[in-house]
Formats: sequence, structure tokens, C-alpha cells
Amino acid sequence: MRTAAVVGTGLIGTSIALALSRRGVMVHLDDTDTTAARTAEALGAGTLRPPSAPVDLAVLAVPPAHIGAVLARCQSESLAHVYTDVASVKSRPHEEVAAAGGDPSSYIGGHPLAGGERSGPLAARSDLFEGRPWVLTPSSRTDRSALNRGLELVSLCGGVPVIMDTAAHDRAVALTSHAPHLISSMMAARLEDAESEHIRVSGQGLRDVTRIAAGEPRLWGDILEANADAVAEVLEAYALDLDRLIAILRAQRSADDEVRRQAAGELEEMLRRGNRGRARVPHKQRSQPAEYVAVPVAVPDQPGALARLFSAVSEAGVNIEDVRIEHSLDQPSGLVELLVEPASVAGVRRLLDANGWVRQETPI
Amino acid sequence: MRTAAVVGTGLIGTSIALALSRRGVMVHLDDTDTTAARTAEALGAGTLRPPSAPVDLAVLAVPPAHIGAVLARCQSESLAHVYTDVASVKSRPHEEVAAAGGDPSSYIGGHPLAGGERSGPLAARSDLFEGRPWVLTPSSRTDRSALNRGLELVSLCGGVPVIMDTAAHDRAVALTSHAPHLISSMMAARLEDAESEHIRVSGQGLRDVTRIAAGEPRLWGDILEANADAVAEVLEAYALDLDRLIAILRAQRSADDEVRRQAAGELEEMLRRGNRGRARVPHKQRSQPAEYVAVPVAVPDQPGALARLFSAVSEAGVNIEDVRIEHSLDQPSGLVELLVEPASVAGVRRLLDANGWVRQETPI
Repeated sequence: MRTAAVVGTGLIGTSIALALSRRGVMVHLDDTDTTAARTAEALGAGTLRPPSAPVDLAVLAVPPAHIGAVLARCQSESLAHVYTDVASVKSRPHEEVAAAGGDPSSYIGGHPLAGGERSGPLAARSDLFEGRPWVLTPSSRTDRSALNRGLELVSLCGGVPVIMDTAAHDRAVALTSHAPHLISSMMAARLEDAESEHIRVSGQGLRDVTRIAAGEPRLWGDILEANADAVAEVLEAYALDLDRLIAILRAQRSADDEVRRQAAGELEEMLRRGNRGRARVPHKQRSQPAEYVAVPVAVPDQPGALARLFSAVSEAGVNIEDVRIEHSLDQPSGLVELLVEPASVAGVRRLLDANGWVRQETPI
Repeated sequence: MRTAAVVGTGLIGTSIALALSRRGVMVHLDDTDTTAARTAEALGAGTLRPPSAPVDLAVLAVPPAHIGAVLARCQSESLAHVYTDVASVKSRPHEEVAAAGGDPSSYIGGHPLAGGERSGPLAARSDLFEGRPWVLTPSSRTDRSALNRGLELVSLCGGVPVIMDTAAHDRAVALTSHAPHLISSMMAARLEDAESEHIRVSGQGLRDVTRIAAGEPRLWGDILEANADAVAEVLEAYALDLDRLIAILRAQRSADDEVRRQAAGELEEMLRRGNRGRARVPHKQRSQPAEYVAVPVAVPDQPGALARLFSAVSEAGVNIEDVRIEHSLDQPSGLVELLVEPASVAGVRRLLDANGWVRQETPI
């Protein structure tokens, strides 16, 4: 791939453009929002000049409802040889490409599983897709050359390609993304009219389960509409589970010991199933899976303290792979965890001890 | 408060003991799990020696179902003048104190809103409660002196006291903690038998909404049982919302444009209510709210690079308040954000530039 076009320079489009530009691909940027497009260009994601000849690949990073129309327009202008999109639903865009009179042979559906809390080009990162799954959904009418161009795109962005058919993809995201999003919104919505004092009595759990409820309503409305049947099926399964949970909780007030005992057993089994399901959720992946060892060290809240710590460590020629500030450094003393290769741990410990640092290794 | 006892040296009990010890209170530790108790002692949380005279306050950091019995035993042994607990349900313990023959006048119910993903004394931190709400639930039979001792405890631990009656507390945590926990488990449980390929197609959203589903089933079963009615009421409200959502999604497939338009409007309004509810969820609080400015710097992945960076900064006498490693340092170059006081920003920038560091400030 030598040339590409990115239509839509939001978080995903700009991140793709940055990744391709870093790999030497000439990227042409386009967005109806000219501020977004200029920002992406200023970040080094590509050029605003239109291509003089069809590019190898055009990435349509536009809202799902627009893909059919944008594809038809781009094809009529011969923007590219091959087209892909980044929408989180796939059946509907494939249908709409056909309905809009587009050519399905040069279109390969795509969905990179990456994103972030912030949107827009300023939140873009060239390594956003590093190690992340990127689904490609070729149809029976997709040319082999389009599929291979899609695979090349994923590879250039550092993603892990996953080929699925459109219906399986949409059922999968209904289960793992769209239905959970609606449930998160539903739980958050019940807080709208709650007493302030009640909401104050909350912790990290509530923050986690409602985080995605902050998503953009129009965008999520579009996504949910485009995948309505698959999402409704997941919600119907939840509704059955919910009815059962309510019955279990109501049974806790039964006068019959045996009824209560059975309900308690069912409740615990449900929680255990939750444990097992949660354990299947993929961890955040590092691009290079590595096991680092954390060496915790107390750091006084003084200018230069962190510098002295890192100097002590670097004397050993040890590379600190990552750093975690465990306690905020606005405390009198903070706890810093140095993540180092297992082979370096002993040396780091000796060095810290020799330099008078207080390691916070647990005594057991 | 000069003397205290902590019965139960898990995460919460040990964190309280650490906080009190730091403030000069003599803390006596007790746990049926002697390893946990010895660990807490080794961490500096207090002594395993039993007190020779009644202590000022005993904190019963035991599972909710045991509070009544443990309180009655401790009172019969004259362990303390005043007792509190840390359970996340409050009506049931108050009832059980009475049922177990305990003296309610020296008991003040308590619930610190703090915790962590890890449990046990090794995860304890003296600043766990810093800036966090800590509910106290005096009953009509609670002595004023017991209430004031509870307030002193919260203050010594750096928490923010909130006085509520037991029923209001239990309704509040049903809404903000217990019902969301069950829903998180329910969503996670549906992943247990899902195809691996489907689960692979997931992102940060699924990780967030299912995180609390990893909680300990026995402990959570106890909590949910103890607050069953209040939790069931919240779930019944969810069940109504869920039925409505299913109907809205099914309406998206209607042949009638007007039906579809109305459904889309209702869906978006639900998502907007979710936005508004989410906005009411308290942010994570810092003990000292402060506005720091992030100065992003590229750091090559070489031994000593971070040390050189911190040396450059500390030469200015600047205190780095916090550090964020934005990109993993197993990339060829990482991005480090130095958080500094606003007044220090200009100096830090000059120093970095003078030392040849590449600042990654966005060009817009």
C-alpha cells in the first residue's frame, strides 16, 4: 500500500491515518468538518490535498448510517481501488452499499476494536490498534484483492485481523458491547432523579458500570438501531435472568428455611457464573506480552526524589519498563512501583537498598 | 481516642488500623485468621497483644452476618466502651445486635465507602478513606458518646462523615452498589457459554461493566441477602425499563416510518437520561483537590532515560506531583506526562527544551 484516503478524521480515522503515515503511506484526509481535518493534518496524519489518481485504499471512518451513501459517492469519483469502513455494525452497511448502488466487490467491511473515552482527532494515537482485534467481514461478492488490502491495513496499524461473517459479528457485538451499553445507560438513567445523598454513597463500582453511559446519544442511537434485532435478543435473555434474580431475592424473606437456603444457593451460583464469565473477558493487551515484576519503593514528596530514584536504578543499566504511582504524590510520601524484567529484579533491589531507598515489599 | 481494637484484619480493618496507628492511637488487632492478623501487625497496623483495659473504640470489620454475634461476645468481654462496624448493609446488623442480646447504646453502625480490587491486609493503605464518604447510622438507642466516637474515627481516617438512618442507607446502596453488582454479574454470566470468537470482539466497555462481577461470591451473596428487599425493588424498576427497551428495539423493524421515528426518539432520550445520571456519579476524589498541568514528553526506551528526564526537571527545584506513562514504554519511545503545579509549567518547559527533550504538546 503506497497511497490511502481517510474520509472522516475523528478519533478512529485520524489514528488510522497516523499509523499509515508512520509506515510511509501517503495519506489524503477528508472531513466535512474542516476544523477536524485541519487538526488531523497538523498532527501529521496526512495531507488535505485530494489525490491525483485513485488511492490503493480508502477508509470510510464515518457514522454507520452514512456508509452506503459515502461509498457510492466515493466510487463514482474513483477515489480508491478498494474501500473499507470502521463501523461497529456490519450487516446494515453491507445491505446499504447494495441499496445505494455501490459496487460491493471493492468493499470490505471492517471494525477495529479500539477506541477511547475521548473522541476527535486530538485524542488520536498511531498505536491505538496495537494488538487489538480488527474484524473484517468479506461478503460473497467481495473481491479477494479487497480482502487482502483490508488485511494489509490491519497489519500496518498493528492490529490482529479476525475474519467473521456479518451476522456473527453483529451478534457478537450485541453481546459484548451494544447490550451492555444499553444496560449501563439504564442503570445510570435511574440515578437521574435519585436523592443526592443516596448517590453520594457510591464507590468505584458505580463509576465503572456507568462509564459507558456517558457515550454520545446520537451515535449510540444509530449503532443500536442498526443492530436492533441482535441487541433485543440479548436483552430478552437478560430479562429472563432479571426475573429469576428478583424471585430469588424475594425468597430471602420466606419463613421457610429450606426456601431461603435454596435461594441463597441459587444466588451464589449466579455470582459464580458471573465470576467465570468475567474471567473470559480479554485483558487489555500489550503489544509485546511481557511479565514484568513490580518493585515498590517509598518516595518522599520532595523535588528531585523521583529523579534520584531513577538515577539509582539506571546506574545498574536496568530499563524501567513502566512506572506506577500507587499513592498520589501529594501525600507526604508516595509509593512508586518500578516494573522491570524479572532478570533485573535482584539487581534493582540491591541498588535501592545500597542507596537508602525504602522498599515496600510485603513482609510475607 | 487513645486506644482502639480492630476485629477482622482484612483490607478495611487493616487500613483503619494503619490510619489510627499513624495518628498515635494504640491499636489492638484480632482475627480468627492468624496469618491475616500477623500480616497486619507486620505492616505496622498495631499489636496482637489483647488490651489490658477496655479500649475507647472497637471496630468490627467482620462479614455482615457475624456482626450481631461478634458484638455480643465483645461486649460480654468488655473489649471497648464503644463499638462500630464497617458492613455495607445497616438495617440487618442493627436488628441482629438487638436479637443477639447486645447493648445497642454503645453501638454505632458504620460504612466507609472505600475498597479496592484486592482484598486482605496486604492491600491495606492508611489513606484508603481519604476524602471518601463514611456513613454513620445512629439509631434512637445509640448514645451520643458512641456517635461522637464514630465521628472521631472517621476524622482520624480522613473520611467525610455522612449521617443517615439505616433504611435510607440500605436503599441508597441498593441503588448505587448492590443492584449494579448483580446486573454486572448477570451480564458476565451470559458470557460463560458464549463462543470464544464472540468474546474476543470486545473492548474496554465490557471490561468496565463486568469488573465488579469478579467479586467474591460468598461475601456478595451475604451482602445481597442482608439487603434483599431494597435490591429487589431496584431490580423491579430495571425490569420495567428493560421491557420498554426491548419494545423500542423491536419497533425499529416496523414497516411504519412513524413507529420507527418515535422509537428512535425514545431510545435517544433513554441514552440522554443515562448521560445525565452518569454525570451525577461522584468523581474519584483526591485528598487535596489540585489542578496540575500535564507536560507531555517523549522518552526513548533506553536505560536511564527516565532518570535523565527527572534529573532535568528536578534541577529547577520543581516537584513532580504525579507521572503518567501514556504509551507503554515497551514501544521504541514512550510518552510521559509530568503533572506539575501551574506556576512551574513555564520553567519545566524551558528546562526540557534546554536539555534536548522532545515535548509532545499538541500543535493546536
